[in-house]
Amino acid sequence: MSGTSSFTPYISPVVRQFEPYVAGRSIAEIKEAFGLERVIKLASNENPLGCSPRVQEVLREQAALAFRYPQAGNPRLVQAIAAHHGVDPARVITSDGSDEVIDLLFRVCARPGVHNVVAFKPCFGIYTTQARFAGVELRQTPLNPDFTMDFDALLRLVDKNTAMVFVTSPDNPSGRAASRESLARLAGALPEHCMLVVDEAYIDFVRAERGGEAAFTMIPVLDEHPNVAVVRTFSKSRSMAGVRLGYGILPGDLASYLWRVRLPFSVSLLAEEAGIVAINDDAFHAETLRVVEEGRRQLEAGLTALGCTVTPSDANFICFSHPAMNDAAAVNDKLLRQGVIVRGLASYGLPDHIRVSVGTAEENSLFLDALAGALPGAQA
Amino acid sequence: MSGTSSFTPYISPVVRQFEPYVAGRSIAEIKEAFGLERVIKLASNENPLGCSPRVQEVLREQAALAFRYPQAGNPRLVQAIAAHHGVDPARVITSDGSDEVIDLLFRVCARPGVHNVVAFKPCFGIYTTQARFAGVELRQTPLNPDFTMDFDALLRLVDKNTAMVFVTSPDNPSGRAASRESLARLAGALPEHCMLVVDEAYIDFVRAERGGEAAFTMIPVLDEHPNVAVVRTFSKSRSMAGVRLGYGILPGDLASYLWRVRLPFSVSLLAEEAGIVAINDDAFHAETLRVVEEGRRQLEAGLTALGCTVTPSDANFICFSHPAMNDAAAVNDKLLRQGVIVRGLASYGLPDHIRVSVGTAEENSLFLDALAGALPGAQA
Repeated sequence: MSGTSSFTPYISPVVRQFEPYVAGRSIAEIKEAFGLERVIKLASNENPLGCSPRVQEVLREQAALAFRYPQAGNPRLVQAIAAHHGVDPARVITSDGSDEVIDLLFRVCARPGVHNVVAFKPCFGIYTTQARFAGVELRQTPLNPDFTMDFDALLRLVDKNTAMVFVTSPDNPSGRAASRESLARLAGALPEHCMLVVDEAYIDFVRAERGGEAAFTMIPVLDEHPNVAVVRTFSKSRSMAGVRLGYGILPGDLASYLWRVRLPFSVSLLAEEAGIVAINDDAFHAETLRVVEEGRRQLEAGLTALGCTVTPSDANFICFSHPAMNDAAAVNDKLLRQGVIVRGLASYGLPDHIRVSVGTAEENSLFLDALAGALPGAQA
Repeated sequence: MSGTSSFTPYISPVVRQFEPYVAGRSIAEIKEAFGLERVIKLASNENPLGCSPRVQEVLREQAALAFRYPQAGNPRLVQAIAAHHGVDPARVITSDGSDEVIDLLFRVCARPGVHNVVAFKPCFGIYTTQARFAGVELRQTPLNPDFTMDFDALLRLVDKNTAMVFVTSPDNPSGRAASRESLARLAGALPEHCMLVVDEAYIDFVRAERGGEAAFTMIPVLDEHPNVAVVRTFSKSRSMAGVRLGYGILPGDLASYLWRVRLPFSVSLLAEEAGIVAINDDAFHAETLRVVEEGRRQLEAGLTALGCTVTPSDANFICFSHPAMNDAAAVNDKLLRQGVIVRGLASYGLPDHIRVSVGTAEENSLFLDALAGALPGAQA
């Protein structure tokens, strides 16, 4: 029996509006479904180098201690993150992936039925789901057709009850980064008490010729902009998506409130120990940036040669379309049958776009070859 | 700068009532503070055998894959848990420790300002904090002086707006287990749509002479009691407190709603893989139960010999008091200086009680020796 009962009357009305959940498919399941020897996953913006050797080492070392609870408050990890960024540890909150910080921000800063939150459309799915779950109105204005950000349009949605404005930079799925100046201007234009949350999940990947992370991250200027908060993750350049670790660098009073309500052990002992090593793993980080920079160039050239329209990316993925590709799902399906998983963007309202993560040089080549045969009009 | 700003006006009123967070101290910090070579931690009900060798092995194997996101919906883990308990997989929700299931239950099943939740006092701290955070009234009735449960008193708090009744069995910090019959009677006496949530974190440790887990868990009778939900954890007998993994076995419709709103990757890839191994790790589980059963006997005998009042325990910890111990904090402090960490129960409203986790035979002896010197009237 599935244990169906009659609790629906008590289910919160906002939860009732959520769609039934569909589980993802594993690489193993896709191999089996299509009889494939090898499957390349370029769908989740994971690190093309795999897990850092030093992170693997600390995970192996700590396995014997996995029966212990993590240290409440993760003070050593907080210290390592604060030292890395040169900020006061009182600003740092750690979390079960950056998703948990975002969820906590909605629960702590915005009151259902009172406050609203503003973001671009499309935006990271977690902003949408957590706003809904928290019962908070999410107001959205479209990105420009070339995915650049119209901050004036964003500002027009802001009123005295806007608790937060969320901007992802570089943005997902476009890869576009907002300049520090434009974000600083936006923060300055917000009403008192309204916070600008900048999600910097992909900030390390900003092109070196544009100044890289150093020129774009808001972290060094947080003291000048007291209403700016930054969200970061260990899932991308730090190669720890499967360990689950994220953090926020927030105004100190806000960080203190998030700590009060964060589940005391939401960050695992393994994440705690691996994070301390990963944040200082400079050689692996530099190599990741090098491989992503080269791979991005390779993919841009290859996609352009195939007639695709490529959005310039400052992230470890590329968003593209093709004049003949009205239905990216069909192309996606052909790619899948050849063992290449990429991300169709229908759920972002972009059914004619695909997002491909930057892989190794070999993976990028295999993807480009598969795409050449999968695009409409190609000879199979 | 700590980045203090002026967001307090926007902080949710319920969050504003939470006390500032105090980080825990690590074993290393306690060693340093008191100049100790060895510190024994018997404070968090962790597994006395350490982490299972098979779990360690899978964690080491999976370290190289830690750059991958976990599989959304954790279908293989859900299948393994369902098979282990002989329940429909549609009933199972996995979570970042059992804390996350509890948090989701408050957010999904109870509407702030409308519903209330009922529990004993004292109860697991997470019920209290998550009720407050969700803005839901928590009604509590005291346990009997000997920590047995008065279900009639509990029922008197229930009204038509009671969404859930929480019972921990075996209870923390007392160690008392409620019989299946009494829980079934309670479930049957609840109004329609009111759910009984039985937190079985410690159920494996029920004494063999009383029939063990098999005689006490509600899982085999869930189909007969459609308003009963069970919460479990991998932190205790499965030795994975540092990995963070819990689960609920819920009415199927409720599990479906929890899946819709659970953060998609809140359970790490490492937890997913380790959980699949741990739930089938019968030899380690049996050895854990054996060591806990022996250690419990050793501690009960030793504590009784020291003149302590011992609550009979069906868990992997023992709650005790002593006629001369009005202030357990002073005793705790003496124990700490001798390198023994136990749990004072002031935060449970029991300032004259201590909870000690069952350790290895050697750890139990060291604790008993230290306690003999720490109790009031003892000669140091």
